[in-house]
Amino acid sequence: MVVGAGLAGLSAARSLESSGHSVVVLEARERVGGRTFNGTTADGTVVELGGQWVGPTQDRVLALADELDLERFPTYNGGENLVFYRGGTARYRGAIPKLPAPVLADVGQAQFRLDRMARRVPLDAPWQAKRAGDWDAQTVETWLRRNMRTSGGRGMLRLGVRAVFAAEPADLSLLHFLFYSHSGGLLDRLFNVKDGAQEERIVGGSQLLALRLAERLAGPVVLSAATRRITQDDDGVVVAADGHELRARHVVVAVPPLLAGHIDYEPGLPPWRDQLTQRMPMGSVTKCMAVYDEPFWRGDGLTGQVTDDVGPVQLTFDNSPPSGSPGILLAFLEGTHARELSHVTPDQRREAVTGCLARFFGPRAGTPLDYVELQWAAERWSGGCYGATLAPGTLSQFGPALRHPCGRIHWAGTESATVWAGYMDGAIRSGERVAAELHRLL
Amino acid sequence: MVVGAGLAGLSAARSLESSGHSVVVLEARERVGGRTFNGTTADGTVVELGGQWVGPTQDRVLALADELDLERFPTYNGGENLVFYRGGTARYRGAIPKLPAPVLADVGQAQFRLDRMARRVPLDAPWQAKRAGDWDAQTVETWLRRNMRTSGGRGMLRLGVRAVFAAEPADLSLLHFLFYSHSGGLLDRLFNVKDGAQEERIVGGSQLLALRLAERLAGPVVLSAATRRITQDDDGVVVAADGHELRARHVVVAVPPLLAGHIDYEPGLPPWRDQLTQRMPMGSVTKCMAVYDEPFWRGDGLTGQVTDDVGPVQLTFDNSPPSGSPGILLAFLEGTHARELSHVTPDQRREAVTGCLARFFGPRAGTPLDYVELQWAAERWSGGCYGATLAPGTLSQFGPALRHPCGRIHWAGTESATVWAGYMDGAIRSGERVAAELHRLL
Repeated sequence: MVVGAGLAGLSAARSLESSGHSVVVLEARERVGGRTFNGTTADGTVVELGGQWVGPTQDRVLALADELDLERFPTYNGGENLVFYRGGTARYRGAIPKLPAPVLADVGQAQFRLDRMARRVPLDAPWQAKRAGDWDAQTVETWLRRNMRTSGGRGMLRLGVRAVFAAEPADLSLLHFLFYSHSGGLLDRLFNVKDGAQEERIVGGSQLLALRLAERLAGPVVLSAATRRITQDDDGVVVAADGHELRARHVVVAVPPLLAGHIDYEPGLPPWRDQLTQRMPMGSVTKCMAVYDEPFWRGDGLTGQVTDDVGPVQLTFDNSPPSGSPGILLAFLEGTHARELSHVTPDQRREAVTGCLARFFGPRAGTPLDYVELQWAAERWSGGCYGATLAPGTLSQFGPALRHPCGRIHWAGTESATVWAGYMDGAIRSGERVAAELHRLL
Repeated sequence: MVVGAGLAGLSAARSLESSGHSVVVLEARERVGGRTFNGTTADGTVVELGGQWVGPTQDRVLALADELDLERFPTYNGGENLVFYRGGTARYRGAIPKLPAPVLADVGQAQFRLDRMARRVPLDAPWQAKRAGDWDAQTVETWLRRNMRTSGGRGMLRLGVRAVFAAEPADLSLLHFLFYSHSGGLLDRLFNVKDGAQEERIVGGSQLLALRLAERLAGPVVLSAATRRITQDDDGVVVAADGHELRARHVVVAVPPLLAGHIDYEPGLPPWRDQLTQRMPMGSVTKCMAVYDEPFWRGDGLTGQVTDDVGPVQLTFDNSPPSGSPGILLAFLEGTHARELSHVTPDQRREAVTGCLARFFGPRAGTPLDYVELQWAAERWSGGCYGATLAPGTLSQFGPALRHPCGRIHWAGTESATVWAGYMDGAIRSGERVAAELHRLL
């Protein structure tokens, strides 16, 4: 039995089935895919409102896309990016924004030092890093304030943290940040389009991964069946979900730890596991799509990628479909910006977002034909995106509980991954890992 | 309608009834009292396994005890305390342990500075402190490492943090720490027995406050009725609990924010509220009582209070009943010590605790007649004790959601208090505050 039909749960089910086991998947939502979701614009174009990109070294998601006959295409990256900084604007090519030299040097040195520290965090046991106690006692913000010289440089790093975690540097444990960075192949890989985690997209939308996985399972995927209680004894487990009560020998719980903590367990989980789930809040991101008849910025020689030092939108991408029609700008509200704009009406939020787009790309960007957004923190069955953001004290004191089974209950989900934790690739890896763990027992 | 029959929920119900409203209280447990709980030893003596002490300026809990005809008695404090430090032992009188002068000076200066900062945190809006952003971007551990000179002094402050929060300085936002400290009347008041938060006890045990409150309510207190779903519309709320579905005009949710976050809401709560509940993990404490035929340490001129720099027990109290028979030592496992000892069997934990007691008070303390403990992190309907421990980034970004009603849902609980937040007194104040808030609407 598997709880959760996101990429982790479905991958676990697929691996278990291919080892000859029979599996039922229970899913709370009316759809599969979890934190991937293909929305549509008014004209029927697919827009990915959740996780969408794949990139080099994400071997498991790339292999899965191939297996499922899904094609990929490069994230639009032709031309120049824009950077808005201290009231000015500059165009630049490549990954390094055109900023004052002292700021670039500051950012470069910080990245170098953070990468060097990150390499020292063991991916399968970050709590065993030699300086784990020290790094898990401070926030990323504390590190930035102590170790960076320019306020512009700190601003850029804060933007980078928001882009990767949908959280503030003040929210995050330095150890968690370093683990996460190491897990994805260090900071440049996390930040970049070319040769980075934003390099490619899935034709037809990333949710197709989950939709096709689900179609190809032999066992049922039961939708609208939120799991409420898991009872275990020496013989097996009983999973009580809305409208269903099912027995199995073991259960894989493949939902964010936050939501795993909402399930009633009988007998209760040990404190070291329950208190872990109390300490894995989800990030804050609202993903916004502005739709135009064409990607007009391309004609101006622009990639559609913006870096802005003010916000609330600090980061944009060209998110048009492979055909280039319609033109779609993806604008992110992340961390504090998503939080502040969770207090206003959808119309006010749209206005704030399109206002930024007009500032970046001119008045035409301010009046899109259509606008679609998803506020992930309002999603009952995710709690937020992209993933869990660990505060200081969590990883070093509770980390070993991330993957340690509790009797017949086994844990999956991208938060439990060691490689590409927090990404689609990590979700798939976690599903395959838990399937292997179970296969050895069965 | 009130969800939760701890001191907050029962106080809210009582205040609402006294204003002429009719109230039903739903409680998940088979008992009232929440984080107060009167256990019993083998010989039938009441031992308080949850919150137990009251002290000066805790006006609401003192008044409530009086109203409910509950007597108080002083925490046993006659004689000398013991401090164990760097392999040595010293006896001392009063609140200041006998430690090397540089350590005492270091601790004194740190307390002075922390108190000065704490006074600058507005109790009703800590996020408006002038330096809120700065203080909420760092952990208490970061502050200690930067601002204290002696490792012995830092060790003492860490012990103090564990004693007050059942958490590690690395887990806590400095802003939350300062707010909490100001809320209870600054650090000496939080730490001390005489003139402090540990000054007095309730004859018969602190849970009597809740038991008597519940008895005196006109409306029903429905036990074993965990609230699972709250639906609201323009007319009122429907609360679905195990075996019950009840309608009301408004509902007060008076459980820890963590657990309020486990309830399904229809329509869903706004992100700023849901994501607050994701960020309020509970502290880690196991409260252990060792029972002897008499409080033999008193004969040696000892109060039974120990401060130890090693642990796992770092703090003890004489917790004998007013009669002094039997003799009871209360030993705390807090923060990292509670967490580490959550991985072992109850017998191993008992051995670790009685081993410390023997080290403190001699071999007689190592072989109690009886031993009773409560591991609060294993309590399904608390999630931990003493209260929520806020990591950096929470109070400044999500704090306003602590008391802001969501439509017809109003929030109580000691975590929502402005005065004596985290204490029994704060719980009562929060109940009275929410009742006044509702009375204005009804």
